[in-house]
Amino acid sequence: MAITIATLKEADGENRVALSPDVVARLTKKDFEVLIEKGSGVAAFFPDQAYIDAGAKIVDRDTAIKDAKIVAVVNRPDEAVLTKLTSGQLIIGLLSALVQPDKIQLLAENKVTALSLELLPRTVSRAQSMDALSSQASVAGYKAALVGADNFKRYLPMMITAAGTAKPAKVLVLGTGVAGLQAIGTSKRLGAIVSGYDVRPDSRGEVESLGANFLTSSVSAAGEGGYARQLSAEEQQQQQDELTEFIRQSDIIITTAQVPGRKPPLLVTETAVNAVKPGTIFVDLAASALGGNVFGSEPSQTIITEGNAQIIGAQDMPSQLATAASEMYAKNIQAIITDIVHEDGITIDPDDDVLGELTATFEGEIISNRLRQTLELPARPKPAAEEAAENKEA
Amino acid sequence: MAITIATLKEADGENRVALSPDVVARLTKKDFEVLIEKGSGVAAFFPDQAYIDAGAKIVDRDTAIKDAKIVAVVNRPDEAVLTKLTSGQLIIGLLSALVQPDKIQLLAENKVTALSLELLPRTVSRAQSMDALSSQASVAGYKAALVGADNFKRYLPMMITAAGTAKPAKVLVLGTGVAGLQAIGTSKRLGAIVSGYDVRPDSRGEVESLGANFLTSSVSAAGEGGYARQLSAEEQQQQQDELTEFIRQSDIIITTAQVPGRKPPLLVTETAVNAVKPGTIFVDLAASALGGNVFGSEPSQTIITEGNAQIIGAQDMPSQLATAASEMYAKNIQAIITDIVHEDGITIDPDDDVLGELTATFEGEIISNRLRQTLELPARPKPAAEEAAENKEA
Repeated sequence: MAITIATLKEADGENRVALSPDVVARLTKKDFEVLIEKGSGVAAFFPDQAYIDAGAKIVDRDTAIKDAKIVAVVNRPDEAVLTKLTSGQLIIGLLSALVQPDKIQLLAENKVTALSLELLPRTVSRAQSMDALSSQASVAGYKAALVGADNFKRYLPMMITAAGTAKPAKVLVLGTGVAGLQAIGTSKRLGAIVSGYDVRPDSRGEVESLGANFLTSSVSAAGEGGYARQLSAEEQQQQQDELTEFIRQSDIIITTAQVPGRKPPLLVTETAVNAVKPGTIFVDLAASALGGNVFGSEPSQTIITEGNAQIIGAQDMPSQLATAASEMYAKNIQAIITDIVHEDGITIDPDDDVLGELTATFEGEIISNRLRQTLELPARPKPAAEEAAENKEA
Repeated sequence: MAITIATLKEADGENRVALSPDVVARLTKKDFEVLIEKGSGVAAFFPDQAYIDAGAKIVDRDTAIKDAKIVAVVNRPDEAVLTKLTSGQLIIGLLSALVQPDKIQLLAENKVTALSLELLPRTVSRAQSMDALSSQASVAGYKAALVGADNFKRYLPMMITAAGTAKPAKVLVLGTGVAGLQAIGTSKRLGAIVSGYDVRPDSRGEVESLGANFLTSSVSAAGEGGYARQLSAEEQQQQQDELTEFIRQSDIIITTAQVPGRKPPLLVTETAVNAVKPGTIFVDLAASALGGNVFGSEPSQTIITEGNAQIIGAQDMPSQLATAASEMYAKNIQAIITDIVHEDGITIDPDDDVLGELTATFEGEIISNRLRQTLELPARPKPAAEEAAENKEA
């Protein structure tokens, strides 16, 4: 029998949707049945008709939940939805398992299988096509660069006109992970002079290959045996002073240091915020209720400082670029579904190197060791084969 | 004695300012005295202190008006200001002389000299550095491309990621003048597939040199002797149908057909607006109270159509990029001041090929022939030399 996949309309303020018409067409071709809650894609500019054309059925929320084997979402749905899921059903999405693990325990008690995308191991190459944190960070970096450029009151590129020459803008990107590199690339496209700053000197190559300058701290955190060492208070101050000077010389500063479920590090201090020129733009991808990378940033708000700089709380960039973000996200979901669905139905091996981490709950048990740690549960016993290999080594 | 130049704070909603600190520094070095009304530059991120550092004095509005020989503005000030100007004073700005010529007649009656920047002849090479319509159109084109990109819910460039490939967006620019070419260049920088449409086939070279496709009508308007001919109703329909199809295939459509003081031509009809995909963005640089280039556009508003397309009324782009726009505008003003101020004071030759058109009023008389035409006054007698030359030819 065909497996039924459903997606639900996200909460207000979230424009993304877990399945795109494009991915639905691929799934229905492979004999999946797809149910879409009415209006799920509207905010991402996917009308219901596009899903119908792709072979899906448009249904109400309760039908979607009741009839689905797999429920695909972007963010964790509210408790009204979670409590309706029953034994044998599977939910997949950015479930924030580590932030509110009690919600996941509820799913485990009801024997609902939950795959929480933030738990995906990011270093296993087979997992790359499933990596929603990465696909959404890429969207966020692109969009942050555009938001910076669109709020800035001068040109990004150098402009040579009959009335004179305008200097190119200086863009500084703090943190050179996926989002940072995408922000660097996009600001570079627009013609700005771009620098990428990271305390990890190993991202120099990637930054420079995009045509940007790589900036780092003169204080090395490299300690004995390759481990990072604790910096002294003096060294921390020196690092901060250097960064403040880089920030002061910039027109647009994009900060990208996000840690899912944890308080983001403060990269731009009050001193640095007050040191910049009027018209300077901060775009803080890590803005959250817990704080952000920039002193004073607030999620989804633009703060004007006393010195007439703007701090843009930009935690919702993927939602702002909803069509592209949803298309990428849906492909991540598709890759996971392809991985777990076989001829004989859904199979999840809790000892698999990808699924063993991605799976929050399976058959009533908490699987992910990161989640078990958060819940103060003991680690799962290692699979026999791995244990045997370790014993052999020892 | 040093000539005093003053600038005034623009009305609410206008972020630009007529003089930048940079240009003020150049003027004070040349022995001009500069007065800045308090707070004039704040919305363009030029604090009062920056003007003081450039050698200007910060004054209140009445002092600025009373003590100035030359008053530089962006838009025409309200009547309260105009009536305070007296004989011998000169006002320079985008005075909209052709739109409300009665305001200019008031200045003539009071023997105030008025230079209205929309009257500048745009084909004389000496006038290029004074051309504010051109400098502001360039700003508008750049900003329109950014606004289009920032409102679009997908990527502009092609993106190749682990989750799959995103196609580049298709941007169509209608009208390939200064604003259109800048919009094309900026969209191109961002990695979109860009087309420029113009009924004048002679802009093909410029469009293609920016790496964009040039689109034009298959209906030629070229008539006998190089003049444009009147199109038949059938030909007009054919032209419109072709354009509708170009629009339908695009993701972002930027329209740039502005005619100062006149109703802009409707380029995107109701049929074309309703033919586009959900998520399509229209950026209408000509949006005005009289209508715009796009059916249904409203100045400074974003309209969502029934088909879920966005129509952005983008007539205020220079004000949105106020720092760059003011810097360019101030350089235009500086070029004009340099042209009219000589050792013995201000000299304006009404028979000069640039000043004769730029000057709305001088010594109580309406000078510009375009303005005289609007006011239904007879053309000014030609200067003796020109008349002699014409007689010779005949």
